[in-house]
Order: sequence, then structure tokens, then C-alpha cells
Amino acid sequence: MDGLQIAEELAKRKEIRKSGKKVVLLVLDGVGDIRHPDNGFRTPLEEAQTPNLNALAARSALGRVIPVDYGITPGSGPAHLGLFGYDPRVVEIGRGVMEVVGMGMDLQPGDVAARANFCTVAGGIVADRRAGRPPTEVAAEKVELLREKLSRVDDVEVIAATGMGHRFGIIFRGPGLVGGVSDTDPHENGEPLHEVHAETDAQRKMADVANKFQQQALEVLAGGEPINGLMLRGMSSPPDIATIEERFGLRCGAIATYPMYRGLATLVGMDLLETGQSVEDEFRTYLDRRDDYDYFFIHVKPTDEAGEDGVHERKVQAIEAVDAALPILLESGPEVLAITGDHSTPCPMKLHSWHPVPLLINSPRCGADCRPRFTEAECNVGGLGIFRSMYLMPLLMANAGLLDKFGA
Amino acid sequence: MDGLQIAEELAKRKEIRKSGKKVVLLVLDGVGDIRHPDNGFRTPLEEAQTPNLNALAARSALGRVIPVDYGITPGSGPAHLGLFGYDPRVVEIGRGVMEVVGMGMDLQPGDVAARANFCTVAGGIVADRRAGRPPTEVAAEKVELLREKLSRVDDVEVIAATGMGHRFGIIFRGPGLVGGVSDTDPHENGEPLHEVHAETDAQRKMADVANKFQQQALEVLAGGEPINGLMLRGMSSPPDIATIEERFGLRCGAIATYPMYRGLATLVGMDLLETGQSVEDEFRTYLDRRDDYDYFFIHVKPTDEAGEDGVHERKVQAIEAVDAALPILLESGPEVLAITGDHSTPCPMKLHSWHPVPLLINSPRCGADCRPRFTEAECNVGGLGIFRSMYLMPLLMANAGLLDKFGA
Repeated sequence: MDGLQIAEELAKRKEIRKSGKKVVLLVLDGVGDIRHPDNGFRTPLEEAQTPNLNALAARSALGRVIPVDYGITPGSGPAHLGLFGYDPRVVEIGRGVMEVVGMGMDLQPGDVAARANFCTVAGGIVADRRAGRPPTEVAAEKVELLREKLSRVDDVEVIAATGMGHRFGIIFRGPGLVGGVSDTDPHENGEPLHEVHAETDAQRKMADVANKFQQQALEVLAGGEPINGLMLRGMSSPPDIATIEERFGLRCGAIATYPMYRGLATLVGMDLLETGQSVEDEFRTYLDRRDDYDYFFIHVKPTDEAGEDGVHERKVQAIEAVDAALPILLESGPEVLAITGDHSTPCPMKLHSWHPVPLLINSPRCGADCRPRFTEAECNVGGLGIFRSMYLMPLLMANAGLLDKFGA
Repeated sequence: MDGLQIAEELAKRKEIRKSGKKVVLLVLDGVGDIRHPDNGFRTPLEEAQTPNLNALAARSALGRVIPVDYGITPGSGPAHLGLFGYDPRVVEIGRGVMEVVGMGMDLQPGDVAARANFCTVAGGIVADRRAGRPPTEVAAEKVELLREKLSRVDDVEVIAATGMGHRFGIIFRGPGLVGGVSDTDPHENGEPLHEVHAETDAQRKMADVANKFQQQALEVLAGGEPINGLMLRGMSSPPDIATIEERFGLRCGAIATYPMYRGLATLVGMDLLETGQSVEDEFRTYLDRRDDYDYFFIHVKPTDEAGEDGVHERKVQAIEAVDAALPILLESGPEVLAITGDHSTPCPMKLHSWHPVPLLINSPRCGADCRPRFTEAECNVGGLGIFRSMYLMPLLMANAGLLDKFGA
């Protein structure tokens, strides 16, 4: 047994629901950064004026989390899986699943999700894999056409939803569908559309349905140049994982504004809570719904956007905005509060990165490191050390007093 | 191969016995603590006056060890297994084994150990699982009765020993016994005693013997209300593990005053050395027996007791007592000395906890961190980092110069 399995066993012996304790995971997306000549060797967390975070840090335990493994830069899917207590090296979220989840589509167990592209075909050959990059509105008309004319293949429902530009999402819903089949996308212009192949017997029906859908879609879209075809990629089933509630007994509510993070939360069994666009709105939603759940995932996006854009000052402001709103969260504060990111998005890189992410845990049992600030460098010397983010969940459970002792 | 297996291989290439080097593991039980409002954000290690430890720390390597895994609070069994170089997530010590070991009973390979309770039965139903909580003296008379009348079932010797109150220990000793069978304890009043079931063919004899013993014990105890029955729980075999000497070539002596820790030491093949009650006595025992062993486990209990009682000042005094005695240990000091705890027992929690435990390693090869004190916070920034305690054993071997190079 590894530590996560042990924690699941130990959690089953305690009655979380009667404890009334609240755990909050506050994810500042991409908050981690790096000292670099471009920022005068001061990270946004170091630059920001954060009186509330400073006060909290002084009575909290600090450390850093590694989202997946050393040197591995995660996408948002694996990065969040880790924070939710799943080993992102083992649990796979297929490309199709990430696509439809990111679009806010309602993916259900047994579904198979696909990324789809509109394309231009000529004589059975893919001439342009992006169909001349149509505006989203134009692609939306074609999605509507597919909805009308091709909403079913045999006993399988086909649910299409508009994405951005030539990209869109498809969910196949029906009995006996298993993801992992090959793409119709040839991944190069000038090649014919590929036939879908099954690797296992269980995948055979999905391959058959996908091939029929592909053929019929060409008929429906024929004559609509430049969009006269489509391609399927990354057809995948939702991960077959137990929910957080099944594993740790926590009723989980997700407070997030972006579809992708709301979708990721549903994959691990969280309820989605209605909230507004600002951090204040999100913290107020926690206050309003405090009695309904044991565990709250609160997702804050602007830190990552600033990092992706490489705008240091905007990332500083995004952090200061969280700091300014923090008193709302602490007004009826959770017994256990963790503040961290899903990964680092250093402004000097304008990309997600592998750098360990600052972590703060505050609880009556946390053991204060008495460091003056919540920054990368202060977290380096904290008592939590540097560890894989998937172990955060057992730590939060322990801080809540919800894990029994291991062995006599 | 993982690091522990590699270390075992590399250890086989060196001749420890000719080296004359001495390794001492000094365990201050439950020494780790947390900064908390209740202690003014100062841990007992921070509060204590420890001139000798300070001087030692300045020329030692520091770090922190995680007994089992992140967020997992260990019992004494898994916690010590880790320090002795065994993976406590894998090696299980059954409840019965811990019970009889904790009572100082002489458990041998092939034995099966059980926790036993005296109880009150009425018409085949367990009326009181604790037989009205009898004083230990009263229970001791019943244990004596069992010893006289029921010391054997078929070819199996039954060894009973008095515990505390209604609890006592039993060892079944004979050919073909395998633990892991079910309990006769129904775990609730108002239920009949359970029959013992085997899960595997190998367990069948043990189940048969336990059922016969249970039946005959009811006859022996009949009429002695409130103690007119007993129940068996956690019947288990000692863990099937190689000794430290087999794995690392170290002849091991254990210096401990409490039966449980002496028992745990015997499970990994250590010899038990006679010693007195104080830390000074224990350190003098090391001096006296220095030539007889390569590795000494010295166990100090008062730090944990103070933590369990939540008495900060007493934990401070327990640490200061170790500090005051330290010159005795260092008089003919071991080449390698590790000071740590089996787990943390923070006074503000009055319980074992998951918090990483401070660790100090001193040797001619340790690499001094030159930190002024041996405290949780200083250990956070030490060169040993924060790591699972099972890797301490390879580190001690390396510090003793007893691990060959890995690869060319």
C-alpha cells in the first residue's frame, strides 16, 4: 500500500460529516514564478503587497508541491488531479475528455469524448486541417447542421458543441463505448482521412460508430467549402476513478468560473456551485454554501493568465486582488485552508512550468513555520518540505483530524 | 531495486565486524513538536536549554524524517520499523503481536499472538466485553487459572500473561500455526462469541486451535462472574522479515526500558541489553557494551509521555535531561550518531502526529550544516532534507563508510 491508499483506509474510520469541519483548497492558477533578470530577481509573490497573506503565512506551515514529477511541466488536467489527491502519473485524462470538459460539456460515465476539427477535403484527401481557420460563428453554423442531421449513429447519441474557430467537441453517448481508438485526423495535410482502428475487442463498437459518423459527416458537410469535412482526435473515456467523496468521505463543492476547471472538478465528483466572476464573489459563495459541503475547491484564474501573457505587473495585481479579498474567506474561515497553485506559470517563460509551487497550510494542527511571507523562497524553508502535490490531500485530512492512526 | 535493496547489496561487500565502527540510533520518542499559540510558537526543542546538543548540532547534518508517509500518523510499531530500515507501508505488525510485544512476552518465529479480553457471558451471549473492568490483580488470578488448567491445546502450547485490567496477552506456540484468522470477539455487547474462521488453508490449524481454546476457556472460567469468559482478537504471526544483521551485517543491541520498544527491537533481531531506568543508565549501558555490538538502538521514553500528556514544560525537561546526559554517550562516542524521534507527539495535540521528525546525524563524513541548534526549524533547512525514515538506515551505513560504491 502506498500513502494515498493508507490515507483512504484511515479516513474510513472517521465520521467527517459529523465533525462539521471545513477544508478549503484555494488554487491560484499558475501562481508560482521564478526569480529572473527580467523581473529584477523578484517574483510576483515577492513583489506584491500582501498584508493579509503575510499575517496568515506567519501562523501557517509552508512548503512547495511538485505537480507531477521533477522537470515535468503539467497541463491543467494532471496538475489539478494531483491537487485533488490522484496520482497524475497514473490517472490519464484523454485529450477528448479535456476538450469537452474545457468547453463545459456535460460528460457522463460511459461517454466517449472527442476533439474535432473542421477541415477542407478534396478528392478524399485532407487539403487543409483547419479549413482556412474559420471564425467561431461560421463554425457554429456547421455544428448546428451536424446537430440537426447527425445526432445519432445506430443506438449512439452524438452531441456536438461549438468550440473556438475550427475546433469543436463531440460526445458519443450510448451502450458499450470505450475510448482509446485511433484518430481519423491524419495529422498532416495532403493525406487521406484515416480509418478508426480498435486496439481491443472492447473498443470495436466505438471504432465502428466513429467510422460511420465520419462517413456520414462528410455527406452532411459536402459542398460547404472551405468547411466540407471534419476529423476526430483523442477519442477517450472519462477516467475510471473513485470520487473524492468515495475515497475520503468528503462532500466536495467546486467554486470556479472557467469551464475547464469546473469540468475537472466534476471528473472527481465535485458539485459545481454557482458563483460570480470575481475572487470576492467566489469567497462569498464559500460563505453562503459553507454548511453544504466538507471540502471546497476554489479556483482563481487571473494569476495564470498574467503568467501566460508574461505580464509580471498584472500577476502582481492578481495576487494583490486575492490578498484584498482574503478577509471574506477568513470571516468564517475553514478549519483547514491550503493556498497553492496547480503549477507555476513564470512570467519570464510565458508558459506553464515544472517549478515546484508554493504551498501554505493553515489549521489548528499545522505547526507554524513563523515565516513572514508566502513566497517561493520562504516556502523553500518551510516545514512541509517539497513533495508531490498528490500527497496534499492526506495532509489536509490529517490537519482536519480526520485520519485515524496507522498501526498500533 | 529500490534504495534499500541497493544498500543491502552494497553492505554485503564490506566487513563491518572488522571495522570496529559503532553506530548509535538515539530515539527520543515523540520528540517532534509544532509551533502553536499554546506554546507561544516555541517548540520544546526550541525552549529547552541544550548546550551539548547545540554544540553537536553545529558539526552535524540536519534534516527531518517522515515516519510513514505524508499526513499519516503512525503507531509506535510502524514508526520504529521505519527507523530500523523497513518500509512500514509494507511490513505489517499485527495487533496481537504488538500487544504481547508491548507486554514484554517472548514472541518467537512461528508463534501466533493474540490480544485477549476477559468478558462476562450469559447464555452464550457477551453481556460485557470488559467484564466490569476488573482491577489488574483480579484479572491476574484468572490468568493464573488459565495457566494451570489450559496451558495446552492438542500439540500447541498456550502462554498467557497478565496485562492491564481486563486485557491480557496469549501466545500460541506449536507447529503449523499461521496468524490472520478472525476474532472470537464480536466487538459489540449482546452478540454471541464468534467462531474463528480461516481465510486460507494454511490458517486452518490455527482457527481450529483457537476455537478449541475458546470453548475450553469458557469451561475453565465458568461460574467466576463477572469474569466468566474471554475473547480473542488480532491473532497474528510475527512479521516475516530478515533481521538487520541479515540485511546489513550489523550486530544490534537494544537499550530500552519499556517492554514495547524492547519487543519491537527483538522483531528485527536485536539483542536486549540490561539497563537502568534513566537516560544516564542507558548511555552507560552503551559504554559498557560498546565492544559487543555494531549498532545500538537507544530508546528514551519521557519526551513522548510529556507530549501525550500535553505538558510542554515536562517535555522541555525531558529534552534537557537527555542533553545533560549526552557527555556520557559522547565519552567514547560512536563513529555515527543519529538523534531523532520515531514520530512527533506535539503537546498541543496530546497525540502522535504526522509531522516530520527532527533528525541529526553526526559522523566524520556527515557534512556539517553548521546550524546553531537541533530544532524543528533548523532541521528544515539542513542538508539531509525531508525524507522517509526508512532511508535513515542506508544513510547511517554510508556515514559509517560501510556501503560500497554503486556501479563503476
